[in-house]
Amino acid sequence: MSTLRQQNPLIHCMTNLVVTNFTANGLLAIGASPVMAYAKEETHEMAEAADALLLNIGTPSETVVESMIHAGQAANKKGTPVILDPVGAGATSFRNEMIARILQHVDITLIRGNAGEIAAILGEVGTVKGVDAQIKTDPVVLAKRAAEELKTLIVVTGEQDVVTDGSRTVTIKNGHEWLTRVVGTGCLLGGVLAAYLAINRDDKIKAAAEGLAYYGVAAERAYAKASDRGVASFQLEFLDALSTLSEEEAESFYRMEWL
Amino acid sequence: MSTLRQQNPLIHCMTNLVVTNFTANGLLAIGASPVMAYAKEETHEMAEAADALLLNIGTPSETVVESMIHAGQAANKKGTPVILDPVGAGATSFRNEMIARILQHVDITLIRGNAGEIAAILGEVGTVKGVDAQIKTDPVVLAKRAAEELKTLIVVTGEQDVVTDGSRTVTIKNGHEWLTRVVGTGCLLGGVLAAYLAINRDDKIKAAAEGLAYYGVAAERAYAKASDRGVASFQLEFLDALSTLSEEEAESFYRMEWL
Amino acid sequence: MSTLRQQNPLIHCMTNLVVTNFTANGLLAIGASPVMAYAKEETHEMAEAADALLLNIGTPSETVVESMIHAGQAANKKGTPVILDPVGAGATSFRNEMIARILQHVDITLIRGNAGEIAAILGEVGTVKGVDAQIKTDPVVLAKRAAEELKTLIVVTGEQDVVTDGSRTVTIKNGHEWLTRVVGTGCLLGGVLAAYLAINRDDKIKAAAEGLAYYGVAAERAYAKASDRGVASFQLEFLDALSTLSEEEAESFYRMEWL
Repeated sequence: MSTLRQQNPLIHCMTNLVVTNFTANGLLAIGASPVMAYAKEETHEMAEAADALLLNIGTPSETVVESMIHAGQAANKKGTPVILDPVGAGATSFRNEMIARILQHVDITLIRGNAGEIAAILGEVGTVKGVDAQIKTDPVVLAKRAAEELKTLIVVTGEQDVVTDGSRTVTIKNGHEWLTRVVGTGCLLGGVLAAYLAINRDDKIKAAAEGLAYYGVAAERAYAKASDRGVASFQLEFLDALSTLSEEEAESFYRMEWL
Repeated sequence: MSTLRQQNPLIHCMTNLVVTNFTANGLLAIGASPVMAYAKEETHEMAEAADALLLNIGTPSETVVESMIHAGQAANKKGTPVILDPVGAGATSFRNEMIARILQHVDITLIRGNAGEIAAILGEVGTVKGVDAQIKTDPVVLAKRAAEELKTLIVVTGEQDVVTDGSRTVTIKNGHEWLTRVVGTGCLLGGVLAAYLAINRDDKIKAAAEGLAYYGVAAERAYAKASDRGVASFQLEFLDALSTLSEEEAESFYRMEWL
Repeated sequence: MSTLRQQNPLIHCMTNLVVTNFTANGLLAIGASPVMAYAKEETHEMAEAADALLLNIGTPSETVVESMIHAGQAANKKGTPVILDPVGAGATSFRNEMIARILQHVDITLIRGNAGEIAAILGEVGTVKGVDAQIKTDPVVLAKRAAEELKTLIVVTGEQDVVTDGSRTVTIKNGHEWLTRVVGTGCLLGGVLAAYLAINRDDKIKAAAEGLAYYGVAAERAYAKASDRGVASFQLEFLDALSTLSEEEAESFYRMEWL
C-alpha cells in the first residue's frame, strides 16, 4: 500500500451515475488520484494521461459507451490497463450489447464481475434480479472458462473471490457480507483493482489478488467496528479503513490460496 | 418490515442526479433491491422485471422523461405500481410540461410531493423557491382534491403527512424537521413508498401510510442520536436506523390517524 | 453566518456528476437552498429565480456547457452573481475550450480554482495531473494577473487562499490539508462562495474572504475531531461543523491578511 500511496496513480473512471462520488472518495482513500471524464471530446486525452482506465457500465447509454470505446482505444495504444466492470450483464439485452461492443473494440486487461455477470457474458443463463445475479457454476470453473474464452484476466467476486488468467488461479477469502449492503462496493473495487494494476504491471494476477485481499481486510475491520450500528456506519468505517490501513498491517490477514 | 426484508422487492429507480446514491443506499437499508437504469433502450425491460417503478423528475431532461414514459408504460402493462415524485413542480414551466406529459401517458399509482408541488400540478399558485414550495391550502383538502382530479393516490408530505385516494384518508405525524436539512430525504421516501406498494398491493393506502410512519420513526430515532452533532451525523444515524429498525419495533411509535 | 441562515439564499448549481449530492448537502448545512437544474429548457428560469449561479465544469459536455451559458446570460440580465469553477482547466483541450466559451459569453463575477487551473486559463503551462495541477508562480501574483486579464474576482485556493480583484487583495490561511483528501471540497467551496456573494453584493471581496475563512475554520474543527479516525469521518465532521458552527463563533479564528 505504501507503494500505491507513494506512486499515487491517476485512475480515469468512466463509471455509473450512482457510484461516482463513492468511487472517487474510495480511490482517494487508498492513495490513488481519481479523475472522472465522460465526454468523447476529451476521454482519449484523459485516458492517455491516466495510469489505468475503469469502464463501468452500471447506467449505460449509447453515448457514454461510444465514449468509453474511444477512451479504451487511447489507453490500449499507450499500453495502459483497462478494467471492465460489466454491471448488470444479463439484466437487459441492451447491456449485453453494450458489453459485447466494448469487448469487440477494446483490449480489456481485467474483467471484474459477480458470477452471474460473468456467466451472462459467456452466454450462460443465470438468474438475474436487477443488477444482481445468481449462478450455480463453481466460480473457479466459471472464471477459468471466461479467461480462456475472453483472453483476459477474470475476477469473479462473491463469498470467495477468484482471479485467473486461465492457467494461474488464486482465490481470496477476505471480505464481509455487509459489502453487499452498501451500494457501489463492487464498483469501487473495480477502481481499486485498476489502481493495483496501474502500479504493478509485471504480475497482474498477484496485483489483483492483493487488491482484493486488502479491500477485504478493510471490510472486515469496518464490520468489527460497525456491526452493532448499521450499514451507513459500516460504509463510514470502511472508507476510514481504506484511508488508514497500511498494506503492511493488512497483509498478515490476507487469506489467499493459489490453486 | 420483516415482510419487506423477506420479499426483497426490486425497485427500478429513475431518479435525479443529486440523490441516486442516497436513494440506492436507503432502499438497500430497508431490505429492497434498487436498480437504476435510464436508457430508453433498456428501461422497459428493467421496469418489466421490477416490482415497482419510481419516476422522480428532480433533474429533468427531454430524453430522460421520454425514457420514463417508456418504462412507465411497460410497468403499466404488467400492473406494476408506478410512483411519481414531481420534484420542483411549479418551479419552471419545463418541469410542469414534463410532469403533464408523464401524467398523460402513464398510469400513475401514487404521487408524492410537498403541498406546493401538488398544488402546482393542480394549477394552483403557490410560492415556489427553487424546488421547495409553500402553499396555504390545508394539506388534507389539497390531497383529496388532487386524488379526485388526478385519479391516483396522493401523498402530501409536510409537518404532517397525508395519504388519500379521495375517499379514504389517513394522516401521519411521525418524522422530524431535520429531514428537510438532508438532501434527498423526500426522494428516498418516494423509493420507500414504491417498496411498500410493491409488497402490499391489496391495500395501497395502508401500505403507503405504514411506509411513511416507519420512515418517520427512523428519523425520530436518528434525531435522538444526532441532535447535538449535526446534519451529517443525522443522515448517518437515519440510514443506520433504516437498516436496523424492525417494523415490529417501530410500529408502537406510529402516529397515524384515519379521518 | 446568522445572516446567511436568515436570508437562506437560493443557489442554482450546475455542477459535475461527482459532487452533486455533497454540494447540495453542504449548501443546506450552511443555511443556503441549493437547486440543481441542467436542461436548457429550464436553466434560464431557475437562474432568474436564484440568488447566485454556480457553473462547475468538472464533467463537461457540449450540451451542459450550452445550458450553462444560457443560465449564465439569464443571471447576467438580473445582475445575479455567477461563480465559475474551471475544474481540470489545462487537463484536456476540450475543457480549455469549454471554459473559454463560457468566459466569452457570460459575465463571470468570480472564478475559483487552484493555481494550476487559473494558470491554465491564462495560457500558462503548469503540471496537470488529471484534474489536479501544480504551478510554481506565486499565487498572489498569479491571482492578480488573472483578475486584471479576465476582469473578474479571482480566488486561488491552496495552502493559503488568495482573493483579489487586481487591486484589493486578501489572503486566508485557514483550512486543512485533509480537505484535499475528500472529493468535492473545492467544488462545494465554489457553492459556498456563491452563497456568500448572494447575500453580500456590496463588498464582494470581503464576502469571498469570509466565506473562505469560515469554510477553513470548519475544516480545522473537523480535523481536530477526526484526525485519528480517517477521511470519511473527517467528511462527516466537516459537514456537521458547517451545520452547527456560527459565523460569530468561527470569526475569532479567521486568519485573513489584507495585502
